[in-house]
Amino acid sequence: MGDIFSNRRTIRKYADEPVDNSLLDELLEKSCRASTTGNMQVYSIIITRTEAMKKELAPFHFNQKMITEAPVVLTFCADFNRFNKWCRLRKAEPGYDNFLSFFTAAIDALLVAQTFCIAAESEGLGICYLGTTTYNAGKIIKALDIPHGVVPVTTITLGWPAEHPEQVDRLPLKAVVHDEKYADYTDGDINCYYSEKEKRADTNKFIKENNKETLAQVFTDVRYSKADNIFFSGEFLKVLKEQGFVEYL
Amino acid sequence: MGDIFSNRRTIRKYADEPVDNSLLDELLEKSCRASTTGNMQVYSIIITRTEAMKKELAPFHFNQKMITEAPVVLTFCADFNRFNKWCRLRKAEPGYDNFLSFFTAAIDALLVAQTFCIAAESEGLGICYLGTTTYNAGKIIKALDIPHGVVPVTTITLGWPAEHPEQVDRLPLKAVVHDEKYADYTDGDINCYYSEKEKRADTNKFIKENNKETLAQVFTDVRYSKADNIFFSGEFLKVLKEQGFVEYL
Repeated sequence: MGDIFSNRRTIRKYADEPVDNSLLDELLEKSCRASTTGNMQVYSIIITRTEAMKKELAPFHFNQKMITEAPVVLTFCADFNRFNKWCRLRKAEPGYDNFLSFFTAAIDALLVAQTFCIAAESEGLGICYLGTTTYNAGKIIKALDIPHGVVPVTTITLGWPAEHPEQVDRLPLKAVVHDEKYADYTDGDINCYYSEKEKRADTNKFIKENNKETLAQVFTDVRYSKADNIFFSGEFLKVLKEQGFVEYL
Repeated sequence: MGDIFSNRRTIRKYADEPVDNSLLDELLEKSCRASTTGNMQVYSIIITRTEAMKKELAPFHFNQKMITEAPVVLTFCADFNRFNKWCRLRKAEPGYDNFLSFFTAAIDALLVAQTFCIAAESEGLGICYLGTTTYNAGKIIKALDIPHGVVPVTTITLGWPAEHPEQVDRLPLKAVVHDEKYADYTDGDINCYYSEKEKRADTNKFIKENNKETLAQVFTDVRYSKADNIFFSGEFLKVLKEQGFVEYL
C-alpha cells in the first residue's frame, strides 16, 4: 500500500492494450464506496471508449494526446438531475438549484474520481487528470448529451502504462501543513520552501524553453495567465447558470 | 486492497487512543503525491489536535460529536495565498483572483483529502467527512486565522475506530455510470434504481422518525432544504468574494 501512494506517477503514455470491461466495472464499484454527502450520490461518470467520441472530445481538452491515445476516458460530473427526478416522483420538491448544491455535488464527484484513480493504480493501471474539463465544460456538455442539473468537473484518461517517468517534485510537507492555526508565510518561508524546486535542472530547462526569467513567470505568463483565467471563469460560471445552479446570480 | 475500497465504512466513534505524529506525517506525505494542477499544489491542510480548538470549531460543524471526540481534525483548504506570495517574490504577477482559480484549488484540496482518507483507512484508521465546512467557511476562516486567498472546502475527523457500523447502501452501478453519452433517466429508470434503497428497513424507520411520507421528503424538507441551501449559497459566495476569488461578481 505504501508504494501505491508514495511511488505514484501520472501516466500520459499508454500501451496498446484494452482495459477489460469487468475490471473497469470493478474499479467503478469500488469508487462508489467513497464518502458522499448524505448518501445522495450526486455524481455521474461518463465512459468514453470509442474513437469517434475521443476525437470529438479532444479539442475541448486542447488536443492533449492522452485523450485519443488512452483506451478509456472518464468524465466525472456533479449531478443533481437524477436526484431531482427522484424527488419529483416521490412528492418532494427539490431545492438544489443553487451554488452550494453544485459545490456539494462537485465534492461528491471529485472524491469518486480520486478513489477511482487510487483503485486503478493499485491494479497497475496509469491515470492522468485533465484540468481542461472546467475550461470547456459547455462544449463537453453538448458532446456528451449532458442534461440540465449536471456539470462535468474533471476528466481522467486511463490505460496500462507505456512509460515510467521520473517522479515530479513536491514542496516539503511543512510548506502545506499548518498546526492548529494557519501560520502565514514570510518571505523567508517562501524562499526556503521553493528553493529545492528552483534548484532542479528540469526547472531551469523549463524556464529557458519558455523564455522566462523565473519559474513563477512561466505559470503567470504562459501556463495559467490572468486573461485565460478570467475568460474561462466567465465560461464556467455561464455553464453553472445554464445548468441551473446559480439562477439568482 | 480490494477490501480497503469495498468494505469501507465512515467511522464516527473513535477509540480513546492518539494518532502518532509520525503516522500522521507519513499519511500527509502520501496524500501530497496526489495529482495537482500543473504541480502548483494550491492547497493547505490545517491540523487540529487541541481540545480548545476542537471546541471552537464544533459549533461551525453544528456540534457533530466527531469534532470533539476524534483525536485529529483536518481542514483542507483551496490555497492560492502561498503560490501568489511566491510569484510576487519572483517578478511574476499572479492572476488567480477569479472563480476558475478557486475551483482549480478546490479540486487540488479535495484530491489530497480523499487520498489522505484512503491512506488512513489502509492503516486501519477511520474517517468521517464534514460537509458543514462550506456552510460556515467564514467562521472557520476566523477561528483558524486563514488569510486572503485561502478557502476551507472540506474537513475530516480521524481516529482509531471504536465502532463497526453496517455498511450503508449505494445505488446500483448502472444508475451512476453512462456509456459514451449521458442517457437521461426515464421514470421507470428512477423507480428501478431507487427501489432497493426504498425497500430497506432502515429507510422506512428513517422516514417515520422524520414524520415524512417518502425518503425524498426527508432530504428536501429536513436534511437539505431549499431555504438552507439558498442561505448557505449566499454565505459561501460571500466568503469566495472576501477571500478574493470572485471580485467581478
